[in-house]
Amino acid sequence: MPILKTSTDALAVPKTDITLDRNQLRQILQLSHAVNGSMSPAYLVQQMARAMEEIVPCMCCYVWVYDSASGEMWSYRDNVRLQTQADHILSGRAFLEKQQLHLSHPAEDSLLHEEYDRLDGARVGHYLAHPLFDAQGNALGVMQLMNSAIHPFSGSVMDMLGEWALLAGGRLRAVLELHQWQQAFYSFSDVLSETLDTRDYITSGHSRRVTLYAMEVAQQMNLNVGQRRRLQLAALLHDIGKLGIPELILLQKKRPGEDEYEIIRRHAQITRQILSRIQFPDRLREVVDIAAMHHEKLDGSGYPAGRRGDEIPLGAKILAVCDVFDALTSRRPYADRRPLEEVMEILEKETGSAFEPFIVYHFKNMPLSRLIQILEYGHTEHFDGEDLRRLDDHTLNDLARADGIATPVLEEIKQIFNHYYTRAYRG
Amino acid sequence: MPILKTSTDALAVPKTDITLDRNQLRQILQLSHAVNGSMSPAYLVQQMARAMEEIVPCMCCYVWVYDSASGEMWSYRDNVRLQTQADHILSGRAFLEKQQLHLSHPAEDSLLHEEYDRLDGARVGHYLAHPLFDAQGNALGVMQLMNSAIHPFSGSVMDMLGEWALLAGGRLRAVLELHQWQQAFYSFSDVLSETLDTRDYITSGHSRRVTLYAMEVAQQMNLNVGQRRRLQLAALLHDIGKLGIPELILLQKKRPGEDEYEIIRRHAQITRQILSRIQFPDRLREVVDIAAMHHEKLDGSGYPAGRRGDEIPLGAKILAVCDVFDALTSRRPYADRRPLEEVMEILEKETGSAFEPFIVYHFKNMPLSRLIQILEYGHTEHFDGEDLRRLDDHTLNDLARADGIATPVLEEIKQIFNHYYTRAYRG
Repeated sequence: MPILKTSTDALAVPKTDITLDRNQLRQILQLSHAVNGSMSPAYLVQQMARAMEEIVPCMCCYVWVYDSASGEMWSYRDNVRLQTQADHILSGRAFLEKQQLHLSHPAEDSLLHEEYDRLDGARVGHYLAHPLFDAQGNALGVMQLMNSAIHPFSGSVMDMLGEWALLAGGRLRAVLELHQWQQAFYSFSDVLSETLDTRDYITSGHSRRVTLYAMEVAQQMNLNVGQRRRLQLAALLHDIGKLGIPELILLQKKRPGEDEYEIIRRHAQITRQILSRIQFPDRLREVVDIAAMHHEKLDGSGYPAGRRGDEIPLGAKILAVCDVFDALTSRRPYADRRPLEEVMEILEKETGSAFEPFIVYHFKNMPLSRLIQILEYGHTEHFDGEDLRRLDDHTLNDLARADGIATPVLEEIKQIFNHYYTRAYRG
Repeated sequence: MPILKTSTDALAVPKTDITLDRNQLRQILQLSHAVNGSMSPAYLVQQMARAMEEIVPCMCCYVWVYDSASGEMWSYRDNVRLQTQADHILSGRAFLEKQQLHLSHPAEDSLLHEEYDRLDGARVGHYLAHPLFDAQGNALGVMQLMNSAIHPFSGSVMDMLGEWALLAGGRLRAVLELHQWQQAFYSFSDVLSETLDTRDYITSGHSRRVTLYAMEVAQQMNLNVGQRRRLQLAALLHDIGKLGIPELILLQKKRPGEDEYEIIRRHAQITRQILSRIQFPDRLREVVDIAAMHHEKLDGSGYPAGRRGDEIPLGAKILAVCDVFDALTSRRPYADRRPLEEVMEILEKETGSAFEPFIVYHFKNMPLSRLIQILEYGHTEHFDGEDLRRLDDHTLNDLARADGIATPVLEEIKQIFNHYYTRAYRG
């Protein structure tokens, strides 16, 4: 029988009679430090696998995590995500049966063969799947070791793995839980933003597009992960204050009058009132300022507070450009999309007074293929792949230059872009 | 000099030359297991303090955590929360200076005296404050030991504390971060629910009151923490689908017509559409069903899906009662509050067909003092304390009995209740 199964009921509680010597205990502690800072599931499972390889030198270690929503096991190796139905892989079987799975020889097991075929055709010399529990005894996933140099494992190596599984399992639970709540918050913001967008015919899809533009600019500007996350949330939520503006005003099919604009302008202040009551995590607190200041201008002529220059956070300055660009290029019930030249002229005129010049530059430096896909978000099914490839290598900055010296290539790019930009449809 | 300060720059990285013997290492590992399951900051800081007391027997240990939003330090002892400005306590000083603070003798330090006066007048024999870092070296708070039996601390005890501080610090960071995201999600739901309530004049404040009723029923029914959390979120968000209903219909000052009710009824289905796109953490997934089924009825005559009996989750059955009670007792632009007797009759009539009898019983079993405070939520400033105390000991169930056998006491309770219930005001 190549498959030995060991019940792991006892794994969920710390052993009191561990056989480990001082060096082994120190090693466990060191490894514990090594995963103790990880806040991301993808990073943590890789760190855990690396720690296992220190305990038991072996060809490949994986930590597989069970996702109860999908019934799948996922893992990461070399930052590549692996994912498959739990009953399609051995580690999934070990997880589902909550039992250690131990194979000493290349197995006849068909599941194993299939699995190894997927893993670069390597052949198994030794296989161990060890269920992972959190401190409450809830099963989280499986630690999997293959082709170890030491074989069979000694009792103390198994004890080290068990000890490690418990410590790392506790960390994994916390990090998974954290990740779930982060996803909950982001998906909530996302679905809310999309729902609110539909409340405003004038700018239907607006928050979504502003978010996509802002993420492009963030990439052009090489913003770090924290800055991107704050900008993304602020972009999704910047118009949440429109909840305080009557639909009678938002939904009319004519251009709003000055009195009505006066009311619409209140949304920026209402956005601040609403967002400042959300208890954002420390690192996201700036979201309130970024979102609430998206109508402030460099020269202090914006609203609601008339902030100027450095008083306006970078993220708000990015939103300002994206927000106005989207407003200028939106199709409206009472007007078609403005010609791109006109849009660029308005943007140009306000650069330096309203907008930060380097942000406008970065905005205009996104590939035209991305720009047109965001402009036409929700209507991209008729895009021609070859057209997109041609737009890949050019930007609005290029087109601006083309106005002076119109090379045949740039003229053609402009035509391709305008073909989609001026497309007439009502949906 | 009673105060010795030690720079703790080195504390943020694991020591490689630790002096600990095998037993000490095992103890650290055991303690690590002990905090490895905690997901709540309040519980964790107490577990951490208890672990410190195992390392260094001493009179009292605290883990103080710094809250950057308020500039305060907080801790828990015997499940009581302590909180104070960081610069008002010694541990806060140690935190702000990021330095170990070591006092060998009862100090002349006035801050310390003040602090000890607060702590039951105990006098210090020995004091150690040790900054707590996470794995990235961010300061989180302070571990504080007072009146230890061992004094002065040996080098290996200090090493154990240092080792412990690092492991526990990593856990603390994860748990604090988790808590922040949970708070972010709940406060987001809360502020959104309140904002949406204002969109619907007919039932302004409705979601808030339904949530308060539901929490009272949950307490009467002894629901566990998880059930309460799901019910709370579902109650806050049950009408989020009204975002899909035009304000023209929601905001009118007359009773809606049948066509309009038809449109309003769509909100339950829209609530499902919106909430099912939020990636709720595993334990909260039921929120979608609870919220979306608040108009289902026991006998299958409800909407949107006509579910019946056991197909409707307990939480949705609770919401159904609270939702209807609030609708029946709301002041409306076109009508005053219905007399309580009429409300109770309607509720009674639907019990068994629409509502689960034992839930109606629990609803009617909440103290009248709570009931009237929720009914009058936002207008409780004129409540008389003595009246509330008298209402404390009686319930709707009592009043129902009073209709048959009207004792003088119950008649009086009824009058007090009705005094607030029928109060006429417009605001």
